[in-house]
Amino acid sequence: MLRMSTLLLRTLRDDPADAEVASHRLLVRAGFVRRVAAGIYSWLPLGYRTYRKIENVVRQEMDKAGFQEVHFPALLPKEPYEATNRWAEYGPDLFRLQDRKGNDYLLGPTHEEMFTLMVKGEFSSYKDLPLSIYQIQTKYRDEPRPRSGIIRGREFVMKDSYSFDVDDAGLEISYQKHRQAYINTFDRLGLKYNIVSAMSGAMGGSKSEEFLAPCPTGEDTYVLCKKCGYAANVEAMVTKVAPYKGEKVGAIEVLDTPNTPTIDSLVAVFNNKFGAKITASDTLKNVLLMADEKPIAVLVPGDREVDLKRLAANLAGVKDLRLFEDADFAKNPKLVKGYVGPQDAKALGLRLYADPRVSEGSVWITGANAKDKHAKNVTCGRDFIIDQYVESAEVRAGDNCPKCESAVIIDRAIEIGHIFQLGRKYAQSLGLTVLDKEGKPVVVTMGSYGIGVSRAVAAIAEQTHDEIGLNWPAEVAPADVHIVATGKEDQPFDVAEQIAKDLEAKGLEVLLDDRREASAGVKFKDAELIGIQKIIIVGKALADGKVEIRDRKSSAKQEVAVTDVVKTLVK
Amino acid sequence: MLRMSTLLLRTLRDDPADAEVASHRLLVRAGFVRRVAAGIYSWLPLGYRTYRKIENVVRQEMDKAGFQEVHFPALLPKEPYEATNRWAEYGPDLFRLQDRKGNDYLLGPTHEEMFTLMVKGEFSSYKDLPLSIYQIQTKYRDEPRPRSGIIRGREFVMKDSYSFDVDDAGLEISYQKHRQAYINTFDRLGLKYNIVSAMSGAMGGSKSEEFLAPCPTGEDTYVLCKKCGYAANVEAMVTKVAPYKGEKVGAIEVLDTPNTPTIDSLVAVFNNKFGAKITASDTLKNVLLMADEKPIAVLVPGDREVDLKRLAANLAGVKDLRLFEDADFAKNPKLVKGYVGPQDAKALGLRLYADPRVSEGSVWITGANAKDKHAKNVTCGRDFIIDQYVESAEVRAGDNCPKCESAVIIDRAIEIGHIFQLGRKYAQSLGLTVLDKEGKPVVVTMGSYGIGVSRAVAAIAEQTHDEIGLNWPAEVAPADVHIVATGKEDQPFDVAEQIAKDLEAKGLEVLLDDRREASAGVKFKDAELIGIQKIIIVGKALADGKVEIRDRKSSAKQEVAVTDVVKTLVK
Repeated sequence: MLRMSTLLLRTLRDDPADAEVASHRLLVRAGFVRRVAAGIYSWLPLGYRTYRKIENVVRQEMDKAGFQEVHFPALLPKEPYEATNRWAEYGPDLFRLQDRKGNDYLLGPTHEEMFTLMVKGEFSSYKDLPLSIYQIQTKYRDEPRPRSGIIRGREFVMKDSYSFDVDDAGLEISYQKHRQAYINTFDRLGLKYNIVSAMSGAMGGSKSEEFLAPCPTGEDTYVLCKKCGYAANVEAMVTKVAPYKGEKVGAIEVLDTPNTPTIDSLVAVFNNKFGAKITASDTLKNVLLMADEKPIAVLVPGDREVDLKRLAANLAGVKDLRLFEDADFAKNPKLVKGYVGPQDAKALGLRLYADPRVSEGSVWITGANAKDKHAKNVTCGRDFIIDQYVESAEVRAGDNCPKCESAVIIDRAIEIGHIFQLGRKYAQSLGLTVLDKEGKPVVVTMGSYGIGVSRAVAAIAEQTHDEIGLNWPAEVAPADVHIVATGKEDQPFDVAEQIAKDLEAKGLEVLLDDRREASAGVKFKDAELIGIQKIIIVGKALADGKVEIRDRKSSAKQEVAVTDVVKTLVK
Repeated sequence: MLRMSTLLLRTLRDDPADAEVASHRLLVRAGFVRRVAAGIYSWLPLGYRTYRKIENVVRQEMDKAGFQEVHFPALLPKEPYEATNRWAEYGPDLFRLQDRKGNDYLLGPTHEEMFTLMVKGEFSSYKDLPLSIYQIQTKYRDEPRPRSGIIRGREFVMKDSYSFDVDDAGLEISYQKHRQAYINTFDRLGLKYNIVSAMSGAMGGSKSEEFLAPCPTGEDTYVLCKKCGYAANVEAMVTKVAPYKGEKVGAIEVLDTPNTPTIDSLVAVFNNKFGAKITASDTLKNVLLMADEKPIAVLVPGDREVDLKRLAANLAGVKDLRLFEDADFAKNPKLVKGYVGPQDAKALGLRLYADPRVSEGSVWITGANAKDKHAKNVTCGRDFIIDQYVESAEVRAGDNCPKCESAVIIDRAIEIGHIFQLGRKYAQSLGLTVLDKEGKPVVVTMGSYGIGVSRAVAAIAEQTHDEIGLNWPAEVAPADVHIVATGKEDQPFDVAEQIAKDLEAKGLEVLLDDRREASAGVKFKDAELIGIQKIIIVGKALADGKVEIRDRKSSAKQEVAVTDVVKTLVK
């Protein structure tokens, strides 16, 4: 039994100065966590109980799915991370240290390398696969801006799983098993979430989804169709464009457009000087970039910006991507800043990438590749040929859902899980092969799957709290029942004690507020702040042989005879 | 259900080259752990199951004792450890690192500072105490010689508790509660252990005991009385000497003893030249040391060495202790190397420390403080006065038990737990005070208590293994029953599967060897190596509707009807 009289707990009435988000504010105020350093937190008894319940749910669901639990150190030698180049790639995000002999170590940010090497050490045949193994373990990332309390910390607990298969079909099955195990886990934890298509990005894999818990203060932005449920990371949002059905237009006309290096100035000149009625979306923006030091143009409608993060995520094979600088224009004198058009791409030495909206047959006003001149009737497929379509334009609320064509919204969320078809990158780098049926070595294909276990405490708090405090789903609350004894006499305390014992005998966990000196008001406020679902008040109603049972979520109250309390709560 | 056909496990027939002790050898061979770097290990599925069972027993016993679980980060800022001077004192044993901003951090080797600060942050009154809090957490020490597998690693898991009390009487009660909780824990884990008096030593506390698990390859040496059960760390062993009842002797006589700078040569000269019948124990050895750069002599009977570790542990207040060097003799010309005696201590500027055997009234042959001269009839209390008695002579098997005076033995063991009355050192350094009844601030007194949780896996393996493999107590075995199906037909596999399901339905954990390709011999050897207590063989006896149940510990075998298996194992 937990007793408020002896519990290591002091609730705070005021918000901590450094807390930006509700979960951080309330977890500190309710005495669940304490800050040790930037992005580094300690758990007090109530917080650790909730943390452990979440950890147990995660473990049970992984075990149920048939995944095997292992455990790696957090302190790891450099060599495996050098073999995959991540020792360098991680940059300053990696905590690095040396031991007394001067050997290099790191604090593991994620364990792909170690899992790959473990399987390589034990297994050697296709018969040993498929295999899915996991750990629940402390991870370290030296975040440039640790924030939001335990949501983005520098020391945190992750459940990371890895699957190992002989072929792509096997990987897909392992991936789906993890996907289902994640659904089961988050459902049990009482989290609302969307499964969001994500880019495989820098990890070099082929398929990836994120589990995002919607929350107004979340760090992640994603696209959601409220009608059909389509959800995607902004990077992974697919642009669906109806085939172009415009009128046929005449040949390109070049017009004098002095001092119109921007879309706004171009539109103004067309409408004011030429009496046209165009908007920015009738113009074509040609954004010049250097891709691995070769000039490329990315074409988007004039009313949209290029989203460099989206572009980079979708532009496979390009390592270094940056906007054109003055020096680049100087080196490429045919490219006239502010007046570039795609119609002379070959002559200009430009490779053309385009947003899907720049579709076959679409007609544009764009630069004429000469100072103070623009061209109209420039038609895609006739006057210029796209080398490669790439999702690169900014995504906006109101854009078409690629599934049902309704208007999507842009929503915020906390990432609580990520599932990922890694493919053969790590197995290749570290030499993980097995012999196939013919006795030939094949490189194993892998998946990696993560749940932020400590972060889930905050995500649940964000989604379930209200103005007066935390409000835990029963499965993860620090206890099942919070009993408050009030008054100056012994009787309510004695009755509360007996009810607590009776409930414990039935397997319920009880937090008993047996403090003699605290006022009833303080105790009620603490109970609301801590957020256990069932609150029993043992006080005034005792004169009628009754106690009050409050429901934290609905605020519903009922008076129940002392003799009926156990019956009422144990159903 | 665990299945050998899919388990991440490859047992090894050969001992790993780097394994010195049985637990290391067998835990690697049975696929429980794998080495990642010096003193850094990963847990494979079977090993992690056993580890987690031990962790759970420890947690349950701590909770039962009313201690509250909290959890600290492993990555800690430097400042608290500077306040207590441990940032410097730990020296190269501490893993140190810097974050991206250049701030200093350490990987926690133990958390006294953090616990002290946590309580300081929450509590302020004597009414809040006593308090005992604990964590089960990963610790880091950069051991100069990591060895014996997980027994002395650089990353390991400890349960560390800390108690907080207003006064010494409270500390004693908290200490005894921990002592009992440790007894309950180790008893449940099936460990044999002795509770051994230990020195508080460098930690600056007042009382300390170690839980030592006897084991021939253990790193710790301790004294044990098999008759009365007295047990002590060698440093803490108490020398009990009967009051000296020797004859009165005449005045000091100085004798010519050329070339006798050693005890051996002195005894030879006395017996051969003077016709005496003495042994080394009749002579007095005066060992000169510099204690904080002041010369001292430590007096022990001539047949014993000074044990510098014992001396240092018992010599409170001395920071720097070292043996005399030639340079020291040169600076103190009155001290004649090989011929020092205590009778002129004042004139020689020597402070005299002595082993309790150099008791009041005892008579000795010793140096005469002149080259080639010794003195006899030198009587303690008459001819020289001991400034301070100190436990300093080497301890030997056969020495008297201080309780019952039987001969003690010297035994080896693994330290599995340590309980410690810290006192006020940390609270003082970090300013942890509470207001007492009169409203005056008092410094809190603390205890610290540790159990090596990951080490316990190895300690249990050391104490329970036999020639053929591991041999787990039921409470910590990776499963309750190991079922081996043999043969080429489907039937034994089907029966084994059914038995496994029936046992699981009764709540037993089953490891099923369902491998079709492995021979019966390989399977039996694996079962013996893994060390689960109940092994069911489903094979030949099936012709009579029977299976064989083997007991791993006793090797007892019995044939049981398939229909009776569940009844036989679930009792």
